[in-house]
Amino acid sequence: MKTAKCVQLALILAVFDPHQFGVAATTRSLPLPVPTSASGLGSTVQAQDQFGVAATTRSLPLPVLTSVSSLGSTVQTQEATPAVRAPGQFNLMPVPASLQTQTGRLAITSSFSVTTKNYSDDRLRAGIVRMIKRLAGRTVLTLPADLASDESAATLVVQCDGPGEAIPSLTENESYSLEISDKQARMIAPTVVGALRGLETFLQLLQTDKDGYYLPSVKIQDQPRFPWRGLLIDVGRHYEPVEVLKRNLDAMAAVKLNVFHWHLTEDQGFRVESKKFPKLHAMGSDGLFYTQDQVREIVAYARDRGIRVMPEFDIPGHSTSWLVGYPEFGSAPGPYKIERGAGIFEPALDPTREQTYKFLDAFIGEMASLFPDAYLHIGGDENEGKQWDRNPKIQAFMKEKGIKDNHALQAYFNQRLLKILQKHGKKMIGWDEILHPDLPKDAVIQSWRGQAALAEAARKGYNGILSNGYYIDLIFPAAQHYRADPLPASSPLTAEEAKHVLGGEATMWGEWVSPETIDSRIWPRTAAIAERLWSPRDVTDVDDMYRRLSVISLQLEELGLTHEKNFGMLLRRLVGNENTGSLRTLASVVEPVKEYRRYQMRPQTMLSPLTGLVDAVPPESEPARRFASIVDGFISDAPRFALYRQDINDTLVQWRTAGVALGPIIDRAPALQEARPLANNLSDIAQAGLEAMTYLAAGYAAPTEWRDAQLAKLDEAAKPKAALELVVVSSVRKLVIGAAELPQLKSSSPAEWRQRIMRLANPTIK
Amino acid sequence: MKTAKCVQLALILAVFDPHQFGVAATTRSLPLPVPTSASGLGSTVQAQDQFGVAATTRSLPLPVLTSVSSLGSTVQTQEATPAVRAPGQFNLMPVPASLQTQTGRLAITSSFSVTTKNYSDDRLRAGIVRMIKRLAGRTVLTLPADLASDESAATLVVQCDGPGEAIPSLTENESYSLEISDKQARMIAPTVVGALRGLETFLQLLQTDKDGYYLPSVKIQDQPRFPWRGLLIDVGRHYEPVEVLKRNLDAMAAVKLNVFHWHLTEDQGFRVESKKFPKLHAMGSDGLFYTQDQVREIVAYARDRGIRVMPEFDIPGHSTSWLVGYPEFGSAPGPYKIERGAGIFEPALDPTREQTYKFLDAFIGEMASLFPDAYLHIGGDENEGKQWDRNPKIQAFMKEKGIKDNHALQAYFNQRLLKILQKHGKKMIGWDEILHPDLPKDAVIQSWRGQAALAEAARKGYNGILSNGYYIDLIFPAAQHYRADPLPASSPLTAEEAKHVLGGEATMWGEWVSPETIDSRIWPRTAAIAERLWSPRDVTDVDDMYRRLSVISLQLEELGLTHEKNFGMLLRRLVGNENTGSLRTLASVVEPVKEYRRYQMRPQTMLSPLTGLVDAVPPESEPARRFASIVDGFISDAPRFALYRQDINDTLVQWRTAGVALGPIIDRAPALQEARPLANNLSDIAQAGLEAMTYLAAGYAAPTEWRDAQLAKLDEAAKPKAALELVVVSSVRKLVIGAAELPQLKSSSPAEWRQRIMRLANPTIK
Repeated sequence: MKTAKCVQLALILAVFDPHQFGVAATTRSLPLPVPTSASGLGSTVQAQDQFGVAATTRSLPLPVLTSVSSLGSTVQTQEATPAVRAPGQFNLMPVPASLQTQTGRLAITSSFSVTTKNYSDDRLRAGIVRMIKRLAGRTVLTLPADLASDESAATLVVQCDGPGEAIPSLTENESYSLEISDKQARMIAPTVVGALRGLETFLQLLQTDKDGYYLPSVKIQDQPRFPWRGLLIDVGRHYEPVEVLKRNLDAMAAVKLNVFHWHLTEDQGFRVESKKFPKLHAMGSDGLFYTQDQVREIVAYARDRGIRVMPEFDIPGHSTSWLVGYPEFGSAPGPYKIERGAGIFEPALDPTREQTYKFLDAFIGEMASLFPDAYLHIGGDENEGKQWDRNPKIQAFMKEKGIKDNHALQAYFNQRLLKILQKHGKKMIGWDEILHPDLPKDAVIQSWRGQAALAEAARKGYNGILSNGYYIDLIFPAAQHYRADPLPASSPLTAEEAKHVLGGEATMWGEWVSPETIDSRIWPRTAAIAERLWSPRDVTDVDDMYRRLSVISLQLEELGLTHEKNFGMLLRRLVGNENTGSLRTLASVVEPVKEYRRYQMRPQTMLSPLTGLVDAVPPESEPARRFASIVDGFISDAPRFALYRQDINDTLVQWRTAGVALGPIIDRAPALQEARPLANNLSDIAQAGLEAMTYLAAGYAAPTEWRDAQLAKLDEAAKPKAALELVVVSSVRKLVIGAAELPQLKSSSPAEWRQRIMRLANPTIK
Repeated sequence: MKTAKCVQLALILAVFDPHQFGVAATTRSLPLPVPTSASGLGSTVQAQDQFGVAATTRSLPLPVLTSVSSLGSTVQTQEATPAVRAPGQFNLMPVPASLQTQTGRLAITSSFSVTTKNYSDDRLRAGIVRMIKRLAGRTVLTLPADLASDESAATLVVQCDGPGEAIPSLTENESYSLEISDKQARMIAPTVVGALRGLETFLQLLQTDKDGYYLPSVKIQDQPRFPWRGLLIDVGRHYEPVEVLKRNLDAMAAVKLNVFHWHLTEDQGFRVESKKFPKLHAMGSDGLFYTQDQVREIVAYARDRGIRVMPEFDIPGHSTSWLVGYPEFGSAPGPYKIERGAGIFEPALDPTREQTYKFLDAFIGEMASLFPDAYLHIGGDENEGKQWDRNPKIQAFMKEKGIKDNHALQAYFNQRLLKILQKHGKKMIGWDEILHPDLPKDAVIQSWRGQAALAEAARKGYNGILSNGYYIDLIFPAAQHYRADPLPASSPLTAEEAKHVLGGEATMWGEWVSPETIDSRIWPRTAAIAERLWSPRDVTDVDDMYRRLSVISLQLEELGLTHEKNFGMLLRRLVGNENTGSLRTLASVVEPVKEYRRYQMRPQTMLSPLTGLVDAVPPESEPARRFASIVDGFISDAPRFALYRQDINDTLVQWRTAGVALGPIIDRAPALQEARPLANNLSDIAQAGLEAMTYLAAGYAAPTEWRDAQLAKLDEAAKPKAALELVVVSSVRKLVIGAAELPQLKSSSPAEWRQRIMRLANPTIK
């Protein structure tokens, strides 16, 4: 599942004026193959979002219309939510269902101890030991490794009522309550998984001051809003070693996600060992696959953390890697070879031959016993049916059976597949495309199309999960994902229908991620999605989300996540030495281009190194967000223009210096050549900004010619280069326009003037 | 093997005036238990180094007499070696045996390709693919994943004559030649392992300039000086996950080390699965052990890189963890529990009971088939025999057999053990203590005692390897390890005797390393040891070593090593947010205390978190080394005092600012409380330095009272705190003394004056 959204996006965007939208200019010509035939299966449904959840997602399958090049201005701060929801003094993420503060605090010292009560087992004890280890690491206190036996003396009592489900499932009770007093913390949970969730909350409550480490006295009652809160990792396009998956499972547990959707097969790689059909992994993976022992290891590791592992075997399309070893199941004779490009490819299983189903029966049977989860994901997306169109036998079969088109043929395939799944005790889940009247009601639809498609399925009685809005590979800011709600307040669904909306999944598609970069593409943004899926619907304060996100992000490092630390490493590798200061300055104010424009601007294959500047740079620039915020503060301080002035000036000087200093560094680092225009742009906009600051500070209106010259420079700087966008340009634009608009300040109120600047700086704001 | 050196050190140091030596003051009371009985087995040999390799190692088993708190001044730059040895324009480490430069260069572009000639196999191809991947990562070029078939078109031709040894061995031919011309690079190697070594050299030759990436035209003929070049990793005291070992094996291969000495058992942990005696790992490891599958995985991974895996099962002492599950083999009735402390412990196997040997026969048999290496390390160190002394049955046995002391009893034990090893096809290796007339000549002595012990063994016809001088857990600077030579020029051994000196091993003892910190304790310093063991003896230019070390250090990051990047991560964790600038400034100019003083100053157990500032800080401060160097340059610029003046002033201002800024940061971070005195010291010495700079710049002699007050401050600052030393104090001392000694400049030459300052600043220099 992946690229069809992009295709649809192209079809839909074509009717809009691209200049209206900050990002649309480059989506006109798309990086990925656009289907030339309108009969492509993927493009028959044109979903319309009927809910209008957020202005920016209305009537588009993907929320792409926001100008993402100016983060500071797109973050629409919601009204402050009740203190109980996201109390500013805590760093909980996701925010619990209910929290009451009390007076007092529980000191954390080296005499800290935990005991269990009622039920206990290895999984719970291991979870407690992990929590203690992290607590010790953070406090640098030597804490006892063993559990305490004396309940009254224990710092934390975990009272668990039972093991919960043997295999993590959709019906697992994940609730817990936690009460912290001066003397003791007490957690009560009906299941071990509930207790594990509570232990994460416990750790997040840790605070410090002069007197040491402590937990504030609180009373928390918590349970998830949705039972299905997932992260898809596509290991097909780029393989990710077991330890990468493990640390991401740890991170998932830390933010209470509970489904690891393991996208195991793609045109570019078949990643799981099959003992029955060994040519699948032997010929389809470049040797990069998971042994069945490793699969069991991951499944056990996930279970230990209360996480389901749902495998996806994407068929009938996306199956090139299957056919390298077994061309006889393809719809064209082959031979096939592992795909190295990005996009939608033609190979598809032949749905008309009995041997295909025999093969699938045996293969699914093997996998069904390897993966204990109740669901097995069959993909089902983006099969354009081109091989089917060209195969006379398939055409004859369709005629004979009265199958009118490829969509119907795939429905036939799915029906056959469904029986195989049922035979092996699995429920079916697939992308939107699998929705069909014959689908049983225990199937689940995973929607990349959006809430409307999800609601349509729900009305028909189908369970669904939302992934539209959670495509983290599109490189959108956390705030944008945070606003996407599987079941927004405006949903027209009845309470009964709404129950079919089970939750959602973030999707880490694997075209441009390596073991070195995948963490930074997933985290910390996915924590915001985790909150959307766990916390009450009215937890929507974006500023507070970001505040907590930056804290949680550092805590994720305790689990081995590399999203923070590999930034510096990749910069060192590019520069070739330790002196990365100037490059870091540049890299901190750019972001990778959004959607699927990276490939268009900077074509690569699956064999390309993912070590360029675009790979080093995180998806979202925190410094740019901060700069946007202080520039807004400065503009709002009209006509005084004192607030943040020094800070802004210092920042601009740093940019100008870095931009100039990068010249000789780039001379010696050929891999950085592509960043030279960005370095020049950085100096240019810094100079423009500094001149604007001078005008503003002096209260002296900048001449029109100056303004026009600067705006031309800014327009040039706003153009992406090296698949990177200088995301501070819009903030500098406000300074330049402000300097030129100084005379208007006399005839309007400061607030009116500020609005004028914002409007002029961003013509799309009405 | 570990702590006895420390004990011996104490005995020997006791006869010196501790004030003579920068580090001796705190070694008077030792962190680790000092044996109260002089009959302790470990302390009967008082080795004397007869070679006098380096002034600092003379007549001491460990080279600890150098003042390491002033790195800049202890690095004794050797005379420049011939250009062919360590040519300044290359970054090769280890330096090859012979290198001739030629004119021209081989461009590295996206058409880069490799082909093999004569012999090729999976191991060679995998090595080439890994090299290409790293080359691609560094250049950000998409390079072909497959080998080329056309020799004439290939950029690199690898001509290999055969597979070499099936199991990596001491007799492996690791030589290769590499000739790079404008058109092509050609490597010739008799074995695959030789080719793997050459591929690392090939990668290290990569250079850049404005015109892109290239390799200079050179002609290299290379082979190792010693056949045994190892790294011991102690996973007994702290377990290290498989991926930690793998990345360290990659790093070993990068610097041409060829023996992974896997120290698998300790009082604190038994880390390998035994199917025959499952209580060994089940009860002796806290669940932290390697399965036999994982062992095979590591062995195969190492073999792929031409690295031997030699296991160590340390007996009869150091065996507490064995006895937790099997107390019946102990010399006291038990029960035993896993040891949590650091030091030497009493438990030892009972050498008088036949069941002990039955057990060892079965156990060694099991391990012998798991580990294919020809050698099996039996430890044999630091058994003080206290349990033996107290056991009447053992005493009766000794009387009956005429065994006169514990040393003889252990020799008896070793003889029995030797027969078991021979039965299972293994040669014996052990620490110095195993040397005994009955030892067969194919045994190997690993010497922690020093070159004299090694030479003594060699004269008797025993093979030996040096570890004295390579104890990287002592936190000494790379230069110190670099100077230790297993076979110094002054060696009295005949050529025939010298052949018994097989090489050496760096030892990463595991008391104070975790998976997060172990890389920074091993790398990059171990690369300097690797060079000592591979390169010709006359490659000794310390400055050039450091220059290359900093380049190689960053290249090691490509392999997943965390020695650079975990520094920032641990600082973030300590501070609790991203604003680590001031702490980083402090952390960059301190070093962990040397030898085993850490435990004394800051006692911890094996269960303690290794996340304190002392754990974050790398063993060797590069900024301090650089500061020492510019201060020396500045002093040498007398009476002008212009050279580096601005640089020194800026640095001092930065320190002063950071020291002050740390106050409120430490207020909020209880785990940093211990660093508060260091922060204050940093401000103090910075202020002293700035005042001194003012005097010097003005040419105005500082008053005596001022000098005395500053020196008192510096003395205070020189005292370790939080197990950390402020290693820039000695440089600031030079500035202070220089300011006070300005009048002397009139009556002496600048060179004389400089020497005067150096002498006054460091009274131990005559």
